[in-house]
Amino acid sequence: MALKINTPLTVPKNKQKTYEKNYEIATRGTGRMMMFAGDQKVEHLNNDFVGKNIPAEVADPEHYFKIASQAHIGAFATQIGLISRYGRDYPNIPYIIKINSKTNLMTERFQDPFSNRWLPMRLINDFKEKSGLNIVGVGYTVYIGSSFEADMFGQAARIIYKAHRQGLISVIWMYPRGKAVKDRDEKNDIHLLAGGAGVGLTLGTDFVKIHYPYDLPGQNEVAKQFREVTTAAGRTKVICVGGSKKSPKKYLKLLSDQIKISGAQGNATGRNIYQRPLEESIRMANAISAVSLYDYSVEDAYKIYTGEKKLKK
Amino acid sequence: MALKINTPLTVPKNKQKTYEKNYEIATRGTGRMMMFAGDQKVEHLNNDFVGKNIPAEVADPEHYFKIASQAHIGAFATQIGLISRYGRDYPNIPYIIKINSKTNLMTERFQDPFSNRWLPMRLINDFKEKSGLNIVGVGYTVYIGSSFEADMFGQAARIIYKAHRQGLISVIWMYPRGKAVKDRDEKNDIHLLAGGAGVGLTLGTDFVKIHYPYDLPGQNEVAKQFREVTTAAGRTKVICVGGSKKSPKKYLKLLSDQIKISGAQGNATGRNIYQRPLEESIRMANAISAVSLYDYSVEDAYKIYTGEKKLKK
Amino acid sequence: MALKINTPLTVPKNKQKTYEKNYEIATRGTGRMMMFAGDQKVEHLNNDFVGKNIPAEVADPEHYFKIASQAHIGAFATQIGLISRYGRDYPNIPYIIKINSKTNLMTERFQDPFSNRWLPMRLINDFKEKSGLNIVGVGYTVYIGSSFEADMFGQAARIIYKAHRQGLISVIWMYPRGKAVKDRDEKNDIHLLAGGAGVGLTLGTDFVKIHYPYDLPGQNEVAKQFREVTTAAGRTKVICVGGSKKSPKKYLKLLSDQIKISGAQGNATGRNIYQRPLEESIRMANAISAVSLYDYSVEDAYKIYTGEKKLKK
Amino acid sequence: MALKINTPLTVPKNKQKTYEKNYEIATRGTGRMMMFAGDQKVEHLNNDFVGKNIPAEVADPEHYFKIASQAHIGAFATQIGLISRYGRDYPNIPYIIKINSKTNLMTERFQDPFSNRWLPMRLINDFKEKSGLNIVGVGYTVYIGSSFEADMFGQAARIIYKAHRQGLISVIWMYPRGKAVKDRDEKNDIHLLAGGAGVGLTLGTDFVKIHYPYDLPGQNEVAKQFREVTTAAGRTKVICVGGSKKSPKKYLKLLSDQIKISGAQGNATGRNIYQRPLEESIRMANAISAVSLYDYSVEDAYKIYTGEKKLKK
Amino acid sequence: MALKINTPLTVPKNKQKTYEKNYEIATRGTGRMMMFAGDQKVEHLNNDFVGKNIPAEVADPEHYFKIASQAHIGAFATQIGLISRYGRDYPNIPYIIKINSKTNLMTERFQDPFSNRWLPMRLINDFKEKSGLNIVGVGYTVYIGSSFEADMFGQAARIIYKAHRQGLISVIWMYPRGKAVKDRDEKNDIHLLAGGAGVGLTLGTDFVKIHYPYDLPGQNEVAKQFREVTTAAGRTKVICVGGSKKSPKKYLKLLSDQIKISGAQGNATGRNIYQRPLEESIRMANAISAVSLYDYSVEDAYKIYTGEKKLKK
Repeated sequence: MALKINTPLTVPKNKQKTYEKNYEIATRGTGRMMMFAGDQKVEHLNNDFVGKNIPAEVADPEHYFKIASQAHIGAFATQIGLISRYGRDYPNIPYIIKINSKTNLMTERFQDPFSNRWLPMRLINDFKEKSGLNIVGVGYTVYIGSSFEADMFGQAARIIYKAHRQGLISVIWMYPRGKAVKDRDEKNDIHLLAGGAGVGLTLGTDFVKIHYPYDLPGQNEVAKQFREVTTAAGRTKVICVGGSKKSPKKYLKLLSDQIKISGAQGNATGRNIYQRPLEESIRMANAISAVSLYDYSVEDAYKIYTGEKKLKK
Repeated sequence: MALKINTPLTVPKNKQKTYEKNYEIATRGTGRMMMFAGDQKVEHLNNDFVGKNIPAEVADPEHYFKIASQAHIGAFATQIGLISRYGRDYPNIPYIIKINSKTNLMTERFQDPFSNRWLPMRLINDFKEKSGLNIVGVGYTVYIGSSFEADMFGQAARIIYKAHRQGLISVIWMYPRGKAVKDRDEKNDIHLLAGGAGVGLTLGTDFVKIHYPYDLPGQNEVAKQFREVTTAAGRTKVICVGGSKKSPKKYLKLLSDQIKISGAQGNATGRNIYQRPLEESIRMANAISAVSLYDYSVEDAYKIYTGEKKLKK
Repeated sequence: MALKINTPLTVPKNKQKTYEKNYEIATRGTGRMMMFAGDQKVEHLNNDFVGKNIPAEVADPEHYFKIASQAHIGAFATQIGLISRYGRDYPNIPYIIKINSKTNLMTERFQDPFSNRWLPMRLINDFKEKSGLNIVGVGYTVYIGSSFEADMFGQAARIIYKAHRQGLISVIWMYPRGKAVKDRDEKNDIHLLAGGAGVGLTLGTDFVKIHYPYDLPGQNEVAKQFREVTTAAGRTKVICVGGSKKSPKKYLKLLSDQIKISGAQGNATGRNIYQRPLEESIRMANAISAVSLYDYSVEDAYKIYTGEKKLKK
Repeated sequence: MALKINTPLTVPKNKQKTYEKNYEIATRGTGRMMMFAGDQKVEHLNNDFVGKNIPAEVADPEHYFKIASQAHIGAFATQIGLISRYGRDYPNIPYIIKINSKTNLMTERFQDPFSNRWLPMRLINDFKEKSGLNIVGVGYTVYIGSSFEADMFGQAARIIYKAHRQGLISVIWMYPRGKAVKDRDEKNDIHLLAGGAGVGLTLGTDFVKIHYPYDLPGQNEVAKQFREVTTAAGRTKVICVGGSKKSPKKYLKLLSDQIKISGAQGNATGRNIYQRPLEESIRMANAISAVSLYDYSVEDAYKIYTGEKKLKK
Repeated sequence: MALKINTPLTVPKNKQKTYEKNYEIATRGTGRMMMFAGDQKVEHLNNDFVGKNIPAEVADPEHYFKIASQAHIGAFATQIGLISRYGRDYPNIPYIIKINSKTNLMTERFQDPFSNRWLPMRLINDFKEKSGLNIVGVGYTVYIGSSFEADMFGQAARIIYKAHRQGLISVIWMYPRGKAVKDRDEKNDIHLLAGGAGVGLTLGTDFVKIHYPYDLPGQNEVAKQFREVTTAAGRTKVICVGGSKKSPKKYLKLLSDQIKISGAQGNATGRNIYQRPLEESIRMANAISAVSLYDYSVEDAYKIYTGEKKLKK
C-alpha cells in the first residue's frame, strides 16, 4: 500500500513531488520517522562522547556517520559543519540539517535559552543544491516560555515555510524552558508537553520532537496519558526524545509503547544508539526501527539488537 | 441593499475590488463580522482543549475546522500551520491568518509580553496565492503598555498597510498589558479599553478586537458606557472578545447588548463556540451570528442554539 | 512678496519645486506654520477626548477632520490610520503623517520612552502616491536623553533625509525625557530646550516642535529668554507645543509673544483647538492662525475667536 | 614637493585620484589636518554656545560657517543637518560629515554611551553627489570599553570601508568610555589612549582623534610620553582633541608640542576657535594652522592670532 | 607527495581549486598551519607592544609586517585596517582577515563578551578582489557560554559558509567565556576545551584555535589528555593559542608535544614571536615552523632560533 502523505499547503504544487519523495525517504515509506539525532556536540559539548561506559570510538565524530550510513534509519539530524566535512564520504545518508544549536554552558540562573538560527534557508538551499547531498529536511529548536520565545517563533515559522517551499520536510524540537517554567517539571508535565506539541502544529511543522515523561511512575498509564500530546499535535506527527542511555530492552519497550499506546509517529534517538561500539550501535538502531517503523514486538526487536535476528522491512 | 464599505486609502485602486470582496465575505454582506477565533493553541497551550466540562472531541484540532466549515461564521482566525495542514480538506472556510502569537508561559513578573510576527506579509501573500485558499485577512495582537509596545506598533502598522495593499482586511487584537498597567483592571477599565480602540484606528485597521468588561456589575449600564470604546474607534469597527465559556443565553444577551447598545460591529468568539460537541458548537455559532449579524432577538437566537429554530439570513 | 524658502540641500534639484510647493502650502505662503496637532489618540489614549469640560462631539475622531477641513490651518498632523480612513472624505486637508507614536502607559520608572517608526518612508511615499492625498510632510518624535535616543536619532535622520528626497517637509517633535533628565524640569528648562532645538537643526529638519515654559513665572521675561531656543535652532524653525487647554485670550497672547518676542515661526496646537464644539474649534484655529501667520493683534485675533471678526489673510 | 599619500588598499583603483584629491584638500597639501570640529550642538547641546565669556554671536549656528569659510582650515566636521541648511551659502568649505552623535544627557550611571549611525553611507554618497558640496570625508565616534562597543565597531568598520570605496577620507573620534573604564583617567591615561589609537589603525581610518592629557603635570614630559600614542597608530594619523577653551598662547604651545614632540599630524579644534567673536575666531584658526600645518613658531603663530602677522602658506 | 585536502562540501565545485590553493599556501603544503596571530592591537590594546622586556621596535605596527614578510609562516592573521594600510608594501604575505575583535576593557562583571563582525563577507570578498592581495582566509572569534553566544554562532556559521563559497579557508578562535563559565578554569579545563573544538567542527571551520592548558602541572600527561580535544574536532584541525611569552626552548618543546602527542595540526603564535627584535622574531618564527610544519626536533628547531641552523623545508 502506497504511503498516504498529507502534504501541507505551504508546499507549492511544483515542489509537491520533491516533498513527497523526501517524506518517503525520511519515513522509509512508513509515514513514521526514526530520526537519528546528532546535534549533541553543541548541545552537550563533549559530555556525551567521553566518559566511563562510553567506548573510545564514540569520541570520533565519524562514529555518527558510520552508524548513520550502515544502520537502517530514517534520517540523520546534525549541524551543517559535520555534514559538509563528512558528507562527501557518506553521500547516501538522508540528512536533516539542524539549523540552530546552543551550548549548555549558559544557565537559566543568568539568562533564558536562545538557540539562534545559524544559516538562512537561502544558504541551506544553496548547500543542498551545490553539495548534491541527500538533504531531506531541516530541524530547529524552540524553547517555549523562554524570554527569547518570540525570536524563535519568528525564525521557526519562516524556516518551516521556506523549507516546505523547497520541498523539504521540517522537524521542530519543542521544549518548555526558562525561568518562567522552572517551577514545572518541564520534561514530565504531560499537559505542558501537549501544549508544546500543539504549538508545533500551529507553526506548521511536519514532525515535532517532544520530551517523553520517562521519569514518571506507572509507565503504562503514562503512555496512555501521553495521548493528550499526540492528539494536541493533530496532523503534525510527534516523535519523542530518547534522552539519556537506558537499558536496550527497556528503551525498546518504551518506544513500542510510544507507538502503540501513545500515538507517536516514530522517535528521535541519539545517545541510546551511538554511545556503544559501532556494530552494537547499528544493531540498536535497527532494533529501534523495527519497533518504530515496522511494529515489531519488543522481543523480536531486542533480538535484532542482540544479533539473533536481522531486520526485515 | 448593497453593503456600503468605507475602503481605506491604503487599499490601492487596483485592489479595491478584492478588498471589497474580502470584506463582504468576512462580514457576510452585513458589514459586521462574526469572527471564529482560533489562536488558543499557542495563546493558552492545551488548557482550552482538555479538562472537565470539555468534551473529548475538542482535543482534536480538526474540531476547529469542522465547526468553521459547517457553521455560519464570518471568518476563522488561526495560525498558518493549522491552515496549511487542514486547509486542503476545508477549502471553503474564509480564513484570517493570525500572524503573531505567544504562549502564556512567560509571566509579567519576569518580562512584559511580546508577540512577534511569525511571517512577513510577503510570505503571507505567497501562501495565499499558491494555496488557493480563501484567505480574506490577517490578524495581529498588540499589547499596549508593554515594554515591547514599540516593536509591535511597527509590525502592526506594516502588516495592516501591506495587507490593504493586497486587498486583505485586518484585525488587531488590542490589549493593554504589562507591568506598567498592572495596577489597572485591564479587562474592565472602559476608558483604557477606549484608548486601545482609538489606537487601532490610528494604525488603520478594519477591525479591532477589544476586551469587554464582563466582570463589572450592572451590565446594562456597562453596555452604555462601552459606547466610549466604539466611539473612540471611529471608522474602525470594534468586535469584542468572547472570553471564557458562559451560559449560552447569557452570552447571547451580552453579544446582543454589545451590538444594540454598545455599537460593536460583530464579535470574536472562540471558547464559547468550540468547547462543546460539534453539533452544539455549530448551533451556538449560528446563534451568535443570528444576534451579531442579523439582529435576531436573544430569544430567537437561543432557539437556534437549542435547535428549535434554523438560522435564516 | 513671494515667500523666500531656504531649501536644504537634502532636497534634490528635481524635487525642489515639490518641496517649495509643500512648504508654501503648509505655511500658507507665510513661511510660518500653524500645525494642527492630532496625534493624541495614541500619545494620550482617550484622555483628551472624553471628560468634564470636553463636549461630547470631541469623542468622535471625525471631529479632527471637520476642524481641519473648515478652519484656516497650515497642516494637520496625525497617524496614517486616521488619514487612510477619513482622507477620502477630506481630500483638501494638507496632511503631515506622524510616523511614530507611543502610548502613555509605560512609565519612566520601568523604561525610558521609545517611539518607534511605524512605516518606512518607502511606504509613506507609496501611500502619498496611491492615495492622491495632499500629503505635504512627515512628523517624528525624538526623546533626547532616553536610553533609546540612539535608535530615534537613526530613524529621525533617515526619515528627514528621505522626506526631503521626495520633496516632503519634516517636523521633529523634540522632547528631553527619561530617567537621565528626571531631575530637570524638562518642559521649562530653557537652556535644555535650546539644546533640543539645536539638535533638530543638526538632524536637518524644517521645523522642530518644542515645549514652551508655560509654567514659569514672569512670562514676558520668559518669552525673551526663549530666544535662546530659536537662536539655537538657526535655520530650522521652532514651533511651540500648545499643551493643555488654556483660556483663549491667554493662549493667543502666549502665541503672539512666541512669534513677536521669542522668534517662533508658528505653533503646534491640538487640545486648545479641538476640545471645543466644532464651530468654536474652527474659530479658535482661525484666531491662532491670525496671530501666528498674519501678525494680528491679540485683541483682533480674540475677536475672530468670539466670532466678532473674520480672518482675512 | 608633492604630498606623498599612503593610500590604503580599501580605496579601489578608480577612486584613488578622488581620494588623493580629498586628502590633499583636507590637509592643505601638507599631509597634516587642521580639522575644525563642529559637532557640539548635539554632543554638548547648547552648553558651548551661550554662557559667560561666550560672545552672543556664537549662539547663531551660522557662526560656525562664517569661520569655516573665511579661516584657513583643513576641513569642517559637522552633522548633515547643518551642512544641508547652510551649505548652499558656503559651498567652498571642505566638509567632513559627522555620521554619529549623541547628547550628553544620558549618564554612565544609567547606561553606557552608544553613538548610533545617523545615515548609511549610501545616503551620504547620495547627498555628496546631489548637493555638489565639497565633501571630503566622514567622521564617526567609537567609545571603546562601552557595552555598545561591538555595535560601534561594526558601524565604524563599514563606514570606513565604504568611505574609502567612494574616495572619501575618514576620521574616527576614539574615546575610552563607560562603566568598565570609570576607574581610569580616560582622558589622561596615555597607555589607554595609545590602545585606542591602535584600534583606529586596525579599523583602517586615515585619522584618529584622541584626547590629549592636558591635565597632567609636566607637559613637556607628557608630550614625549604621548609618542606612545602616535607610534601605536602607525600609518593612521593622530589628531588631538582641543577640548575646553584655553588661553591662546598656551593652546598654540600645546599644539606645537603635539606636532613637534608627540608626532601628531594636525589637530581637531572646536571651542578654542569658535567661542570668540568672528574676527578673533578666524585669526585663532589661522594661528592654529600656522603651527599645525606650517611649523610656525608659537610666537609667530601667536602674532597671527593677535593680528600682527598674516598667515602665509 | 601531494597534500591531501579534505575539501568541505560548502566549497562549490568552481571554487575548489581556489580553496585548495589557499589551503596549500596557508599550510605551506604540509596540511598544518603556522598562523602568525596579530589581532592583539584590539584584543589587548597597547599592552603587548610597550613595556619592560619588550624592545622599542615592537611598538611600531609595521614590526608585524616585517616579520610576516621575512619569516617562514603559513599566514598572518590581523584586522583589515592593518592589511589595507601596509599591504601595498607587503604584497607577498598570505593574509587571514580577522573579521571580529573586541577590546579587553569591558569586564565580565558588567557584561559577557561579544565580539561583533566588523565587515560582511560581501565586503571582504570585495576587498580581496580589488586589493589584489594574497588573502587566503578569514578568522572569527566565538565565545561559547557568553550571553551573546547566539549572535556569534549566527555570524560564525554564515562567515564560514560564505568564505568557503569563495574558496577561502576559515579559522575560528573558540573560547569558553562569561559569567556562566567563571567557575571553571576556562583555559585549562580540557573537557571544556574539547567541547569547544567539537563546536568548531559543527560550524564547519577548517581550523579551530584553542587554548592549551599551559598552566597545568605534568605537561607530558597534559599533552596526552589534550588528545580529547583534537579527537573531538574530527576533521576540523586544532591549532593552539601561544599565549604569553615563554622561554624559546620551552615554547618549542610545548609546540612539539602539541603536534606529536596531542594531534594538533599547527599552532597560532603571536607574542612568542613578535615581542622580540626583528631578527630574533624571524628566527623564532622559523623555529616554530620547523617544529610545527616539518617535524624538526626541539633541539634542531632551537638552533634555528639561535641562528646556528637555517630552516630547510
